[in-house]
Amino acid sequence: EAPKNAFYAQSGGVTSVINASAAGVIETARNNKNKIGKVYAGRNGIIGALTEDLIDTSKESASAIKALRHTPAGAFGSCRYKLKSLEANRREYERLIEVFEAHNIGYFFYNGGGDSADTCHKVSMLSEKMGYPVQAIHVPKTVDNDLPITDNCPGFGSVAKYIAVSTREASFDVQSMAKTSTKVFVLEVMGRHAGWIAAAGGLASSEDTEIPIVILFPEVKFDQKKFLAKVDNMVKKHGYCSVVVSEGVQWPDGRFLAESDRKDAFGHAQLGGAATVIAEMVGNELGHKNHWAVADYLQRAARHIASKTDVDMAYAMGKASVQLAIKGHNAVMPTVDRISNKPFKWKVGMAPLSKVANVEKMMPKNFITTDGFGITKKCRDYMLPLIKGEDYPPYKDGLPKYVRLKNVAVPKKLKKFSV
Amino acid sequence: EAPKNAFYAQSGGVTSVINASAAGVIETARNNKNKIGKVYAGRNGIIGALTEDLIDTSKESASAIKALRHTPAGAFGSCRYKLKSLEANRREYERLIEVFEAHNIGYFFYNGGGDSADTCHKVSMLSEKMGYPVQAIHVPKTVDNDLPITDNCPGFGSVAKYIAVSTREASFDVQSMAKTSTKVFVLEVMGRHAGWIAAAGGLASSEDTEIPIVILFPEVKFDQKKFLAKVDNMVKKHGYCSVVVSEGVQWPDGRFLAESDRKDAFGHAQLGGAATVIAEMVGNELGHKNHWAVADYLQRAARHIASKTDVDMAYAMGKASVQLAIKGHNAVMPTVDRISNKPFKWKVGMAPLSKVANVEKMMPKNFITTDGFGITKKCRDYMLPLIKGEDYPPYKDGLPKYVRLKNVAVPKKLKKFSV
Repeated sequence: EAPKNAFYAQSGGVTSVINASAAGVIETARNNKNKIGKVYAGRNGIIGALTEDLIDTSKESASAIKALRHTPAGAFGSCRYKLKSLEANRREYERLIEVFEAHNIGYFFYNGGGDSADTCHKVSMLSEKMGYPVQAIHVPKTVDNDLPITDNCPGFGSVAKYIAVSTREASFDVQSMAKTSTKVFVLEVMGRHAGWIAAAGGLASSEDTEIPIVILFPEVKFDQKKFLAKVDNMVKKHGYCSVVVSEGVQWPDGRFLAESDRKDAFGHAQLGGAATVIAEMVGNELGHKNHWAVADYLQRAARHIASKTDVDMAYAMGKASVQLAIKGHNAVMPTVDRISNKPFKWKVGMAPLSKVANVEKMMPKNFITTDGFGITKKCRDYMLPLIKGEDYPPYKDGLPKYVRLKNVAVPKKLKKFSV
Repeated sequence: EAPKNAFYAQSGGVTSVINASAAGVIETARNNKNKIGKVYAGRNGIIGALTEDLIDTSKESASAIKALRHTPAGAFGSCRYKLKSLEANRREYERLIEVFEAHNIGYFFYNGGGDSADTCHKVSMLSEKMGYPVQAIHVPKTVDNDLPITDNCPGFGSVAKYIAVSTREASFDVQSMAKTSTKVFVLEVMGRHAGWIAAAGGLASSEDTEIPIVILFPEVKFDQKKFLAKVDNMVKKHGYCSVVVSEGVQWPDGRFLAESDRKDAFGHAQLGGAATVIAEMVGNELGHKNHWAVADYLQRAARHIASKTDVDMAYAMGKASVQLAIKGHNAVMPTVDRISNKPFKWKVGMAPLSKVANVEKMMPKNFITTDGFGITKKCRDYMLPLIKGEDYPPYKDGLPKYVRLKNVAVPKKLKKFSV
């Protein structure tokens, strides 16, 4: 009997290292051809599976797949498309199984965050019921770092490094201008519900390079008076101050600082603009000249300054997913299990999807200082290893050389299906 | 007779490589102790000279000065403080000469842009008149790349690299999300009057990595209808599109897209917000989901991704300034003279400050495509060599190790002077 093929798809917001996980999946499958046939990737994520738009990754050279390790974003296309509950949309789940069966797919590798873990779990359950069992493995990925059980989520370490490095650099800039010009710099970062990314701004300050930084976490209701006093105090003491504000910061009444009516495809409120609110406030109330930046996609696409630890973990999660599948596991996710901080040691673990799906890991309370504006030593000890090491991509003519795959389509066998 | 001391000051907005010029000045002076005594730096730029707040750079170790080469921002502090005309403010010019005389300073190295070149020129003229001749050398620096005569301005190449790399990375991100989510990404960049920095966004697209990019230059009056048609066309053709918008883009009536009432210390209108205007327009008029980023200080502080060419030039300009002074030159600025594009070759030249001061170099018309939204091959040929090469700083615990100097004050000899 010929080994079953595998299906791999990228889901949700991409990261600078999700392709490293893809490389881990594909290279490991290629090294186990007696167990796994071809790896088909979904064009634009799960939509590619639903519409039978599969990419034959066997058409890609070994060097192209290797180059995925240093290429940001989703090489096969990702999507924001959440499958509804089994009751509400059995049609789509059944279609997935139909496509998998038509292409002899026995392995489902889904590379995403919490929503995707849920989908992955459901596919595993339904396939069993339908008599075409598929081994579903979730490959963890999210810059939001909010998946449970795993020590951290591939994608986070690199965003954290980008934010820490950028905050340090901009702070050096402001410090040198503060005498006559800008005294407060405001950087808006991602993180809707959890302040993991904002916390990374705090890493910019270290024992040998102290920087006055005020962090605004989504976990801490915004107290304008306390905030302004803190900033003013920092400016008086140090001459300048940097503020790192999460897009998800809320007023005491629960409205976002950056409220807008726009929603993303998952129905989450789409944010942007907290930095301008904070900058104007600092200008109007304290009279301090200020500048603001919004990092937006730059932070999660910045492969040029990715964390080596993060890249290694992302690759390892992809690799482990295939190994778990080969060992016969189903409805699981490989995890990063931390063994020790100093020296930093970790190993690959495993979590059942039933315990991963739809659980959002918040920052521990003891990661935030009691005044609500900074990170504790505990947080620093947790986060520093994740930004450690550089893993520079190759360059050509001054620009990083990122790969674009051929993405050759697998011939279709089924009727059209519209999503 | 003991050799005269030198005065060095950083002026205006800092860059990721202005400290490399400082290293060039100080190391070259140290290598010529028979000609130049100590190098005193102005704390917070020219204000340090006026208030006799001088920093004794001889107190810094060789390794600290060497580390300036990889440290962004202004290590001695910069300032936005423009000396008025000689007629309007003779008091300040005379004070400068008084301070120079008190500290046996015979060389004035002023590291800045157009305004500083003007000040530098005036100091040279007045010192002669006042019978205490000072050799004034302007060390070119500005991310705006708008100084005349010199091929480019140190600081620009690194911003250009940051913008090109970031635009490429964010475009990969958008491309992979475009099927169900963001189709247009908008990045706002610096450049009040000249579109040099915005043009660098065009470098993100190359022959082997084509990316649909629309650039909005301050040189081209904003034509909303044409712009929206262009973006829509790109999205239809490629599925996505990136827009790089200069903060200085204006409506046909001359108002800035990002008009605000705030002004900087030189009286220039302070901008910020063009990206939100463009993003909202794309959303409302075309219905394309979009994201926007404002790079602000991140772009000019990003030493972690500095251009090696730029770092080398910045250092060379500092070094050449001292060499020109030793040769007896006065009221001049070293320049980058381009010899050839392929292979890229350049040498150090020299320009009289009378021809540099208050002249703003705009982008040549033939650098912008006829539709006004892109860069030509001429522009690309000019700009690509400037972003070439990487010059990574050393890292510690995942963060770049930037130096902070001791900045020991020189004992004061004069009465207090208020600015």
